[in-house]
Amino acid sequence: MTHAALPMVVPDPALPSRVRIHEVGPRDGLQNEKAVVPTEVKAEFIHRLADAGLTTVEATSFVRPEWVPQLADAEQLMPQLADLKEGGVRLPVLVPNRRGLDRALALGAREIAVFGSATESFAKANLNRTVDESLAMFEPVVASAREAGLAVRGYLSMCFGDPWEGAVPVGQVVRVCRSLLEMGCDELSLGDTIGVATPGHVAALLTALNEAGVPTGRLAVHFHDTYGQALANTLAALRHGVTTVDASAGGLGGCPYAKSATGNLATEDLVWMLHGLGISTGVDLGRLTATSVWMAGRLGRPSPSRTVRALSHQEP
Amino acid sequence: MTHAALPMVVPDPALPSRVRIHEVGPRDGLQNEKAVVPTEVKAEFIHRLADAGLTTVEATSFVRPEWVPQLADAEQLMPQLADLKEGGVRLPVLVPNRRGLDRALALGAREIAVFGSATESFAKANLNRTVDESLAMFEPVVASAREAGLAVRGYLSMCFGDPWEGAVPVGQVVRVCRSLLEMGCDELSLGDTIGVATPGHVAALLTALNEAGVPTGRLAVHFHDTYGQALANTLAALRHGVTTVDASAGGLGGCPYAKSATGNLATEDLVWMLHGLGISTGVDLGRLTATSVWMAGRLGRPSPSRTVRALSHQEP
Repeated sequence: MTHAALPMVVPDPALPSRVRIHEVGPRDGLQNEKAVVPTEVKAEFIHRLADAGLTTVEATSFVRPEWVPQLADAEQLMPQLADLKEGGVRLPVLVPNRRGLDRALALGAREIAVFGSATESFAKANLNRTVDESLAMFEPVVASAREAGLAVRGYLSMCFGDPWEGAVPVGQVVRVCRSLLEMGCDELSLGDTIGVATPGHVAALLTALNEAGVPTGRLAVHFHDTYGQALANTLAALRHGVTTVDASAGGLGGCPYAKSATGNLATEDLVWMLHGLGISTGVDLGRLTATSVWMAGRLGRPSPSRTVRALSHQEP
Repeated sequence: MTHAALPMVVPDPALPSRVRIHEVGPRDGLQNEKAVVPTEVKAEFIHRLADAGLTTVEATSFVRPEWVPQLADAEQLMPQLADLKEGGVRLPVLVPNRRGLDRALALGAREIAVFGSATESFAKANLNRTVDESLAMFEPVVASAREAGLAVRGYLSMCFGDPWEGAVPVGQVVRVCRSLLEMGCDELSLGDTIGVATPGHVAALLTALNEAGVPTGRLAVHFHDTYGQALANTLAALRHGVTTVDASAGGLGGCPYAKSATGNLATEDLVWMLHGLGISTGVDLGRLTATSVWMAGRLGRPSPSRTVRALSHQEP
């Protein structure tokens, strides 16, 4: 049997006509892979993603190298992306603190992201600080970045459920979102870090944020597929008017063969749905799939993306 | 890290409050597995599914044994399910023709299903008939079943895309649906056999069926996860008022390690979403997951369901 390589297009008039995909594979994906990928492979990966039409590719992280050895080569990688930067591809980098910002600025980064938590437990576990202490840590970093003319994204982890605290009250998420916006973040990415959200919860959080005065245009969603819910949750967010969606090429970072797989939403599965809905993304699905198959070869394991597997008939 | 074993509940008032899951694992699932499962294992599987709260479990098929060796033991299996039948569990069986119906009736079946196609190509490939010839073949079978007091479900394959024909016109699906209802089918299951549908297409088909006078209450949806779209498509169908959803425990029948995996929607992934939305199903997710883990052990391969993996930390 053969089948068409692209989804049929049947638009839903209640949904946006265009979505910007914030590709997190090279950063969030590779950070959560066991293998440390050579710098040249990363550079080729990011070039291929841009060639496939992705306009925003989170490139790396400026955390302390000993914390995340997978991304310890930021200084070596960034110069290899200069042509993309010149070409207008957005290449945000993760920056945890002042030292990270200085490193990013020295390499000519134009866009950074800080990584906050909606819950005290995860703030403690990830940043060894309370939520308010972490916000206080970000404040001068965001201010300096803005002064330097950089765009700033605020990630917010554990927006739905937390492994220690269970369900996360919507009001708690709204409070941290407002703080991040007030300190100068241009965009917030609402993370379902452990993948437990369902579509009603997504709608409830987005409604509460709107009611608190947060414009939907400044929100992105970042779903994990731990329980298979990422795409249904994305659909709920689109229905609410969200037009920026985070995803990881090939589902990188969500190894289906590991315990407690975090399961990033695969960019290809997202693109299949968006294009089927007539929502333009600028992405060439065939090129993107070929890139993920190539990257899976470098990592020595198959992509967990169902679309990648179906389009490539890839065997593990 | 630990996390809650159940999703948080945040209802969406636009969705139904209750969904009936039509469990297809023992029939559609096992039919598409390489291994032939012993009759006793099937009987235990079906008992465990019923114990987990599933009220409709498609038990087997009365096609010619040489066509589907995986289900050649229908005569041996059915008597082992007598207690379930007495207890009110619905145990529909697939019946392709008069001979199959006679076998099913001889074993006391109370509910059958016929398996039609929305496209000429698949009717030819699967039944060696045109669509109209296959409808003519079903007509006396459905009539006899109804006379005998049996409930009849009509499956309709290729309702969205067809591997040979590409996109399937909505009007073509509507025509076959009406024929199946007019000949006496109580319920129709709309199948996305190759998994290419996206949510706008689902909404468009359901709208067209309503406009043609088909009540939503007589429709079920049957999505495949080939491209990861099954749950998002299910959400679109729920939003349209559909309250019967087909799924396969543990994602049986959709082996992620085979070429062209058909990828049944996993019942556990569905239940996670429904329960998170506050939609009752009567299913105990923990028991169901334990059943799928047990069955995966019998088949010697891991479940492709993300929820099963996450809840069981199952390694391949």
